[in-house]
Amino acid sequence: MNRTTIANLIGSVLRFLGLMMLIPLIVAICYGEDCNPFLTSSAITILVGIVLGLKTHEIDDLAIKESFATVALGWFFAALFGSLPYLFSGISPLDAFFESMSGFTTTGSTILSDIEAHPMSLLFWRSFTQWLGGMGIIVLFLAVLPKLAVAGRDLFRAEVPGPTSDKLRPRLSQTAKILWSVYVVLSAVEVVALLISGIGLYDALCTTFSTMATGGFSPHSESIAFFASPLVEGIVVFFMFLAGANFALHYWVLRGEHTRLLHNPEFRLYAGIVACATLVITLLLWSQNGINSIRLGIFQVVSIITTTGFATADFDTWHNGARLTLFVLMFVGGCAGSTGGGMKVVRMLLLVKYGYRELFRTLHPRAILPVRIGRQMVPQGVMESILSFFILYIFVFAVASLILGVLGMDILSATSAAATTIGNVGPGFGVIGPAGHFGGVHPVGKLVLILCMWIGRLEIFTVLVLLIPEFWRK
Amino acid sequence: MNRTTIANLIGSVLRFLGLMMLIPLIVAICYGEDCNPFLTSSAITILVGIVLGLKTHEIDDLAIKESFATVALGWFFAALFGSLPYLFSGISPLDAFFESMSGFTTTGSTILSDIEAHPMSLLFWRSFTQWLGGMGIIVLFLAVLPKLAVAGRDLFRAEVPGPTSDKLRPRLSQTAKILWSVYVVLSAVEVVALLISGIGLYDALCTTFSTMATGGFSPHSESIAFFASPLVEGIVVFFMFLAGANFALHYWVLRGEHTRLLHNPEFRLYAGIVACATLVITLLLWSQNGINSIRLGIFQVVSIITTTGFATADFDTWHNGARLTLFVLMFVGGCAGSTGGGMKVVRMLLLVKYGYRELFRTLHPRAILPVRIGRQMVPQGVMESILSFFILYIFVFAVASLILGVLGMDILSATSAAATTIGNVGPGFGVIGPAGHFGGVHPVGKLVLILCMWIGRLEIFTVLVLLIPEFWRK
Repeated sequence: MNRTTIANLIGSVLRFLGLMMLIPLIVAICYGEDCNPFLTSSAITILVGIVLGLKTHEIDDLAIKESFATVALGWFFAALFGSLPYLFSGISPLDAFFESMSGFTTTGSTILSDIEAHPMSLLFWRSFTQWLGGMGIIVLFLAVLPKLAVAGRDLFRAEVPGPTSDKLRPRLSQTAKILWSVYVVLSAVEVVALLISGIGLYDALCTTFSTMATGGFSPHSESIAFFASPLVEGIVVFFMFLAGANFALHYWVLRGEHTRLLHNPEFRLYAGIVACATLVITLLLWSQNGINSIRLGIFQVVSIITTTGFATADFDTWHNGARLTLFVLMFVGGCAGSTGGGMKVVRMLLLVKYGYRELFRTLHPRAILPVRIGRQMVPQGVMESILSFFILYIFVFAVASLILGVLGMDILSATSAAATTIGNVGPGFGVIGPAGHFGGVHPVGKLVLILCMWIGRLEIFTVLVLLIPEFWRK
Repeated sequence: MNRTTIANLIGSVLRFLGLMMLIPLIVAICYGEDCNPFLTSSAITILVGIVLGLKTHEIDDLAIKESFATVALGWFFAALFGSLPYLFSGISPLDAFFESMSGFTTTGSTILSDIEAHPMSLLFWRSFTQWLGGMGIIVLFLAVLPKLAVAGRDLFRAEVPGPTSDKLRPRLSQTAKILWSVYVVLSAVEVVALLISGIGLYDALCTTFSTMATGGFSPHSESIAFFASPLVEGIVVFFMFLAGANFALHYWVLRGEHTRLLHNPEFRLYAGIVACATLVITLLLWSQNGINSIRLGIFQVVSIITTTGFATADFDTWHNGARLTLFVLMFVGGCAGSTGGGMKVVRMLLLVKYGYRELFRTLHPRAILPVRIGRQMVPQGVMESILSFFILYIFVFAVASLILGVLGMDILSATSAAATTIGNVGPGFGVIGPAGHFGGVHPVGKLVLILCMWIGRLEIFTVLVLLIPEFWRK
């Protein structure tokens, strides 16, 4: 394993991150808040970044192992150094790391009990880390560092969600550029739309960062309910829905090829699940309260399936059927190639097709029946990787839930905490519901959940592969 | 589809069942209870059985479809006609069907609130149906009807739990005879052991029926705690543990080949999980109460992993970690070829190995790595069937939980009700915990749970295959 190369690349990530810390510094200056947390954090992060880059090494090619190590450790160190501003604002080291990992992985689970009690610049950093993590730091590097082109394929595969990656252009750096451009354009449109709806620039920026990244951090304790505006909710729902869909499809739509979106089997299923879940939840809320709750229903369904985690109501007080529907949606997640988490809609689709095929084959044992998506045959290797993903996802969920249970958490809180962090959603049920927070979780439990967020964001394999002894063998 | 053959076979099952109803009749006579429920039920069941057998047809061979239809519908009608004694004892039709299905599938979930309020003969029938269902009605038929030999393979495969079936002898009818003989011998030994421990013949028989079948019905509301005897608990734990292991292995042990048991990877993992779970739960109970609870811990672990469902304590009041451990064990289940339910230990083992292999292959994309168990390679077809089983099991669990939630059940009760019925365990958590019962579940919910028990006992495929349109096509 070429450690110098990995150190160099992580050094670049840290130097970039250090520079990014100067953006909340501007916010601190504007609002007359303490600038020290950001100045100190930025200085430390850039310094470490420079030290890691001192022993230079020509990046010509990365082996698979090195690519995985770079992406997994790159995210780990980004979250670690990204926690410095929280630390220097008086938050304990473990809580700071939790909040930072929750930011970069676009989870949105928070240890803060009273959000408004913290400086606006720190809350800006909190949302901004989500935006950086949303499309992926490594994808950004692929866009700007053409040297990485050769190893890019593995790096891209290790970071971008979904079982397969759409190559929009023959060169990966071009694909990465396109994805980030679409991300920036959609974000800009949302900021403008929110400004027009009447909320201030600070709120518009923070909300957009967390929407487009499907993160869910909000500078307000009440989350989106704070604005008490159907228009704002509508805008957020629309952009959450887009952020949970495949960005490659958005690119084609922006180029005028709308049919690509409408004929995409994953997008159709995604839209269908959103529609059905909204219908079920709206009917259940109506049966519970006798009032039309479609506004609450659609917001929460889109917020959870896209794994954003914004709230306009305490959904933990809703009808049991509505709660359970949201719980299941935490596992489904957004589309492949989106900024959303969870297992991804396309994987669900292929798992159901695979299960159905085996039923069919019970009757025709000798039939050869490839699994298809649209008209395309799914290669055996991709299907095997999806099956393993499903197994490992469920096992990580079960193990994390068990540890939290042993630490004393009640069953619903423990299982939903595991599900919401692996799926990068944000809130769960029980003590960590939308009205609660993760501040009271046992320290060991916080570590477990930090691991879950990291494992979930990099889609299981990239992190778990570090655990097998083979990885560290020469 | 040859409907006459299917009707003939189901007719035989019903005639046999009608005769079996005369056994609780003896109990009714002994205890001076009302004999009518059993006389009437027996007459109706035998009559229908005769009518179904009127239009004779030489059984020469069954197509795959006919085998599946016979097993799935055979179980359905056995549970349906088996509910007659409950019905004629004054229990509502839906509740009677629930209790009967819970019996034959060896689930042990009950709708009875005050068990002792019912006639002893009816409670005898309740435990006896579990014993009949434990080793499988069809396996019994294979043992006694040599005409079925040709189609036997498919029938056997459709009923016997586990991904592969051990052929103990070249002829299936011999294998079936051996399995039933081991079952009868072990049951006889347990009855004698329980009698020696000092409990009466009635209790010894009922307890044995539910132990060896891993069923869990008890003629006492307090379940095994009623006897307040460490010796009885020890005997029950020992035989539950045996019933949750592969009966083919017991056959080899009875023939003096002990090493087969100790070298079996599934048995070793099964014993290992029981040991670890007992340790964790004992430590948690000790931390909760400060007293040594190994007796409670080992009983409940063995009762749940073998999917028996007996109780010596209300484990729903235990430490959250202990409850969650038991919840996870409901999914694990017993060994293949046992009378236990759940996913089966060998499937868990192979799923973990499959997931690990894919991690390994992330580093070596071109490596060909077959999944092995012990020294044997697992054939691709078997692995695919296990993967589909896992997917379908989780999906049936999710769908059933969602429906129960929509019907108003709280999340923990709904998910544990689904898990405990698909896994054929018995009690769950919340309203359907060991201190509660299923009597208060919404009627639609009861229907869903009846389906779950049926689907779970026949290991998903045998029932779900009836749902695909292809099955009914000419």
